[in-house]
Amino acid sequence: MTPGELKQLGQRILDDVAVATRDGEGITRESFGAGEEQALQVLERYAGTLGLHAERDRYQNLWLRLPQDARPRPPVVIGSHVDSVPLGGNFDGLAGVVAGILVLLRLREDWQAAPPIRVLALRGEESAWYGRAYAGSLALLGKLPRSALALAHRSGQGTLGQAMADSGIDVDAIARGEALVGAGDIAAWLELHIEQGPVMVAREWPTAVVTGIRGNIRHNRIRCIGEAGHSGAVPRWLRHDAMLAVAQLLARMDEHWRVLLQMGMDLVMTCGICSTLPDSHAVSVIPGEVQFSFEVRSQDRDTLERFYALMQQECNALAAERGVRFELDEQLTSSPATMDSEWIARLSQAASAANLPAETIPSGAGHDAAVFANAGIPAAMVFIRNANGSHNVHERMDMDDFMAGVDVLTGAIQATPTVVVPPVAAAA
Amino acid sequence: MTPGELKQLGQRILDDVAVATRDGEGITRESFGAGEEQALQVLERYAGTLGLHAERDRYQNLWLRLPQDARPRPPVVIGSHVDSVPLGGNFDGLAGVVAGILVLLRLREDWQAAPPIRVLALRGEESAWYGRAYAGSLALLGKLPRSALALAHRSGQGTLGQAMADSGIDVDAIARGEALVGAGDIAAWLELHIEQGPVMVAREWPTAVVTGIRGNIRHNRIRCIGEAGHSGAVPRWLRHDAMLAVAQLLARMDEHWRVLLQMGMDLVMTCGICSTLPDSHAVSVIPGEVQFSFEVRSQDRDTLERFYALMQQECNALAAERGVRFELDEQLTSSPATMDSEWIARLSQAASAANLPAETIPSGAGHDAAVFANAGIPAAMVFIRNANGSHNVHERMDMDDFMAGVDVLTGAIQATPTVVVPPVAAAA
Repeated sequence: MTPGELKQLGQRILDDVAVATRDGEGITRESFGAGEEQALQVLERYAGTLGLHAERDRYQNLWLRLPQDARPRPPVVIGSHVDSVPLGGNFDGLAGVVAGILVLLRLREDWQAAPPIRVLALRGEESAWYGRAYAGSLALLGKLPRSALALAHRSGQGTLGQAMADSGIDVDAIARGEALVGAGDIAAWLELHIEQGPVMVAREWPTAVVTGIRGNIRHNRIRCIGEAGHSGAVPRWLRHDAMLAVAQLLARMDEHWRVLLQMGMDLVMTCGICSTLPDSHAVSVIPGEVQFSFEVRSQDRDTLERFYALMQQECNALAAERGVRFELDEQLTSSPATMDSEWIARLSQAASAANLPAETIPSGAGHDAAVFANAGIPAAMVFIRNANGSHNVHERMDMDDFMAGVDVLTGAIQATPTVVVPPVAAAA
Repeated sequence: MTPGELKQLGQRILDDVAVATRDGEGITRESFGAGEEQALQVLERYAGTLGLHAERDRYQNLWLRLPQDARPRPPVVIGSHVDSVPLGGNFDGLAGVVAGILVLLRLREDWQAAPPIRVLALRGEESAWYGRAYAGSLALLGKLPRSALALAHRSGQGTLGQAMADSGIDVDAIARGEALVGAGDIAAWLELHIEQGPVMVAREWPTAVVTGIRGNIRHNRIRCIGEAGHSGAVPRWLRHDAMLAVAQLLARMDEHWRVLLQMGMDLVMTCGICSTLPDSHAVSVIPGEVQFSFEVRSQDRDTLERFYALMQQECNALAAERGVRFELDEQLTSSPATMDSEWIARLSQAASAANLPAETIPSGAGHDAAVFANAGIPAAMVFIRNANGSHNVHERMDMDDFMAGVDVLTGAIQATPTVVVPPVAAAA
């Protein structure tokens, strides 16, 4: 196929999956639900038309390969997930699977000069349905906790385990922690994904190579407890204003953040939820309590922990200065994942060779690639420029940018020895 | 009566009104409603027992005087209001009326050596019932806007005008703006009231003389509008975080406040309501909008306006720095009221003579005294130490502190020429 024909094919696959999973202005592909299954069936039909070998594993993930490539060596796996958030966009996840198919077709004529390749369409990456991200890739690697099967659907009706069983998945094997692939079975995981932030649009980068996936430390609810009082009758020196204490905390952390960025650290900080108490607040009452969330993300575990410690110190300082106290709920953490340096180098070189900017970028959002990386499998990602963020109907990926990403993946694989050394096999 | 007997009498009157208007752990005396009327009837019974002349005016306020004192000169009027908030405390308002009665009795033997005195028990001071403060004193002075009569009761059932009519009040006269007393008819308004803040408890002042009643400038709802985004995927330089912008605004205003206090200005600032948007906020979403209230109070109009202008400047600066915008709703203002300097001097001297601290304090909360002062009538207030704030069932005034306040009022009146020069009569 010519490059133009490949681009048309990619567009057709994306469009057909969108039509099959249309939901108002967007698409909905529920994890382990109907839209996700329909997406997989569209991909299977294309596999048939295109002469690719397609197979579901026992966890109902879809694997594609060239039928003639039966080499037993651990393959390079290209893929992403096919589920979406409710009323999501068409490209988040799906683009990575379609990219894998196009790479397979690009290398079909000369497959023996490249390492073995599999395309993997994963299920259940989005946390929107059962409150748990990466259920599909974690299950595949034998790492989904048994307790996760009892997680309730966002509607309150049904559980993750029931939905998996209804999808034909061997839930007992998942409950036993049975891995379908181990670290020794896969030479590398490559994932193309739209960027979910605005950096590449702002920088005018069509593609970028991901250096790592940010981990985070999070509190869903911190209470700052001061003392309520009449807004006119209590002077400053007798106030214990919870709102001004929280404002001061956030202003100080914002300044620490600015300084740490200047020192070259990778860091983002967000207070996504903050509120005086709706049942008792009033314009003329000094707030006696404020509740807020706090999240810090970084590619670097040390940076996470140091910034978190700074936050604790500022809480203690403000408690002493203002006669308030901070009550922190459970600390939730997610580990950063580092992408494989050799693959980062190969992808960057392939970008340069294709006259694309050889830029790197951290991923602030989570991806299945983090699960593979933290399981000891070399993992790497290519981001595609995308306007309007993700998890909404306004995602906008340009097909030329997408094809540039396919070029980068293809180039990196072509530059790879046909025998890629896999990591040491995991114990059974 | 001996001082001890007077104190016992004061306690009995307060207790009897509390029993008549008991509501769970507190009391409830609805403006132009049942509890308020019961309180007035208890006071009328005491007037009969004590040999005082009692009379309702056409707006159903209660006036008491010594029967023998028929001097035509404009009297010094001592009083406060008898209504309360729902489930309020017994002393807010009522203490000022009982204090007036005790002063009348203290001066009974030697009434001709003092100026004529009237005790006034006002109705309808609390805004909790119809959303409007000072309805009783404004009506008395012909200043209650006709539109206020249509204000709905907090329950949604009935209006202020209906409640007034049901109380036997000449509502038509109020609607016409008919004043029952003008500036020329009253030599001075003296009001004893519990402090509604914690300053006097903290300073260990049993009594203090009020210098003025703070006015305020207020916005019930300011919107800070930024841009929502993924908390992991948007770097600092591309964020328009509404929460951090508001936190920074409040932190800066808090610092301005601190500096202005050091410069000797009278000022309090409160953000009583602040919230990210409950329908769309999330721990991992950069807040795209925050809504908050802003209130500044001062005895000095210039200080109010200058601090407000500073707030506007900081909003503009933050809008430019952070790519957010601030949308301010209607600016609401309430004028400061200055207490009469001669009466402040007399009350302070009386406090010193009674071995009480001759301290002064601004009133952060509003009082009927502000209505009299702004109508051109010399007005002054004595505050009584009170624990636990007001507008709740935990108000706690000590009877010895209360009697000290009665001493201060009595002493100030005794130091007054028997003919007090009233202000120029208001035009009819």
